[in-house]
Amino acid sequence: MSRFSLRPNLPAYVPGEHVEGDGYIRLNTNESPFSPSPGVAAAVAREAGRLNDYNDPDCTALRAAIAGLHGLAADQVTVGNGSDEVLYFAFMAFADAAHPILLPDITYGYYDLFAAAQGIPLCRAPLRADFTLDPADYVRAGKTVLFPNPNAPTGLALSAAQIEEIVRGNPQNVVIVDEAYIDFGGESCLPLIARYDNLLIVRTFSKSRSLAGARLGYGMGQASLIADVETVRNAVNLYSVNRMTQAAGVAAIEEDDYYRENCRKIIAARAYTTDMLRAHGFDVIDSLGNFVFARPRAMSAAHLTRELAARGILVRHWEKARIGDYLRITVGSMQQMQALDAAIEMIFGRA
Amino acid sequence: MSRFSLRPNLPAYVPGEHVEGDGYIRLNTNESPFSPSPGVAAAVAREAGRLNDYNDPDCTALRAAIAGLHGLAADQVTVGNGSDEVLYFAFMAFADAAHPILLPDITYGYYDLFAAAQGIPLCRAPLRADFTLDPADYVRAGKTVLFPNPNAPTGLALSAAQIEEIVRGNPQNVVIVDEAYIDFGGESCLPLIARYDNLLIVRTFSKSRSLAGARLGYGMGQASLIADVETVRNAVNLYSVNRMTQAAGVAAIEEDDYYRENCRKIIAARAYTTDMLRAHGFDVIDSLGNFVFARPRAMSAAHLTRELAARGILVRHWEKARIGDYLRITVGSMQQMQALDAAIEMIFGRA
Repeated sequence: MSRFSLRPNLPAYVPGEHVEGDGYIRLNTNESPFSPSPGVAAAVAREAGRLNDYNDPDCTALRAAIAGLHGLAADQVTVGNGSDEVLYFAFMAFADAAHPILLPDITYGYYDLFAAAQGIPLCRAPLRADFTLDPADYVRAGKTVLFPNPNAPTGLALSAAQIEEIVRGNPQNVVIVDEAYIDFGGESCLPLIARYDNLLIVRTFSKSRSLAGARLGYGMGQASLIADVETVRNAVNLYSVNRMTQAAGVAAIEEDDYYRENCRKIIAARAYTTDMLRAHGFDVIDSLGNFVFARPRAMSAAHLTRELAARGILVRHWEKARIGDYLRITVGSMQQMQALDAAIEMIFGRA
Repeated sequence: MSRFSLRPNLPAYVPGEHVEGDGYIRLNTNESPFSPSPGVAAAVAREAGRLNDYNDPDCTALRAAIAGLHGLAADQVTVGNGSDEVLYFAFMAFADAAHPILLPDITYGYYDLFAAAQGIPLCRAPLRADFTLDPADYVRAGKTVLFPNPNAPTGLALSAAQIEEIVRGNPQNVVIVDEAYIDFGGESCLPLIARYDNLLIVRTFSKSRSLAGARLGYGMGQASLIADVETVRNAVNLYSVNRMTQAAGVAAIEEDDYYRENCRKIIAARAYTTDMLRAHGFDVIDSLGNFVFARPRAMSAAHLTRELAARGILVRHWEKARIGDYLRITVGSMQQMQALDAAIEMIFGRA
């Protein structure tokens, strides 16, 4: 830190460890084990020769494609450099030092940083002991409401009817639902957009659409709400979705069947993983994400994380209240999950 | 705007008109007329198949390449999604509602938006009547100082000695020098980094390196100053430079000769354009950017802009105080500038 910094107290976000190459089985950042669809590489190649030209700041083709996928109008869609950027812009649009955000005590950790960067107070509603979210905690919140559905890192989801209870219960506040993991079996609240002007849904291409490294996310809501997010985007980084990523996103939507099939594979591998971990004596939450949240009984979660890393398998562990005994394990390919099975077998055999 | 917006008064940034395809000669956004170097497409293609994996949030290879190019250490470099993002992060690090920024009255328009988004007051030092910047206006500023060198849209530059006067004259404040256009003949103040801990230099790959559509910019300074910008980056969008763009940036640095040759071509085309416009009766400022700032005498700048657009040539005009009589014309290829010559000949012949 220099003597000039005006943000000396900004906390540090610690992402899942990043390693390049094939040396590790990476089950620590909820990436997809599947390559992007063939059309993505072709679309990117077409753009690579004309990168000297600016990208379309309005992301016209991409927003039209997303709108078409979900039966919306283009002005009901905003896009960003990852859903992180869409969320950050939404925080700026709908929260500030005088307008806090209400969110679960256990959830995606980056929200804390967006709030800290903008001086937005966070109010935390504790999840129940079983990590389920009680919708009643969010009714008449008097604050901007935010939660992922399914939640991370638990994988537990609300029904659309439960979310409607929250949206209807906050007519004077925006409710932001982060559907990053919705394609793995949860029930989307997308149909509510037609009826509620205070609902913003955020999604990402990083998980089910295999584009984590391209950085693409989007927001959906009524046109008036989307206009507010676009106003912030215009002021902060209008060109942030580059030419290659816009094209990759359009291609990924055109090849939707490929991604739906991949989601089915992940759901099957998740069932295998859940059963396998239970057979090893883990407590495993029934997840609707592309990850499972599981508590080993044979050794501490921290110790098991280190033992797995020593065998080339990365999983995520947080030394935090309530969840320090758990691991979040990404559901990869069946082959990767079988390798995890074998590694745990060895570790527990030797323990 | 919805009834929920907390930013109802955020101004709108109006970028140069974006058109896709070959229907227009685009001299309105200071793009490069030259494709990226061959290695860029190859590097991007290598990444396109593994976009399911997250990009390196530390941008390790890219920062090392930039550092190597400029004789710096990697911790003296930060990167962002365009120099716009680096500047936005720097605004957050070194300015706030109580710490204004001092900048020229005529300069890059997006600065206004970054400041508005963060509630940062801007103090404007008027350029002289001939649009030159008086360094004395920036000494003992008592504020964070910001100016592009060369300035946009004038193309006029300070010497490194003049910039040193400003940096030395503000020991208690950060001086941000936006060197977006430095590769077209200006004198960089890069050597000052070794001696001053309050100097942040920002650059872009959009202009001289033909990567406008890939979104890549960087900041350089002493490690302590860069750490402050990185702290903000960590909190706002740690992954914003995607996998393809990181690889494109490394490739573009490896093929530096190609870009140096392109800069020589632009400088030659700029000399041609300056002479050509003067022959048509324009007042033309001697520019050190990849654009010229010129005042037509035969008709109003607004009218000429429309006449050129009707002939498929886009240039930039601002209906603003002091510069409403001028056009900013990007220097493209010789062929494009000859087409501009012919179009002006026709328009003035008919006028």
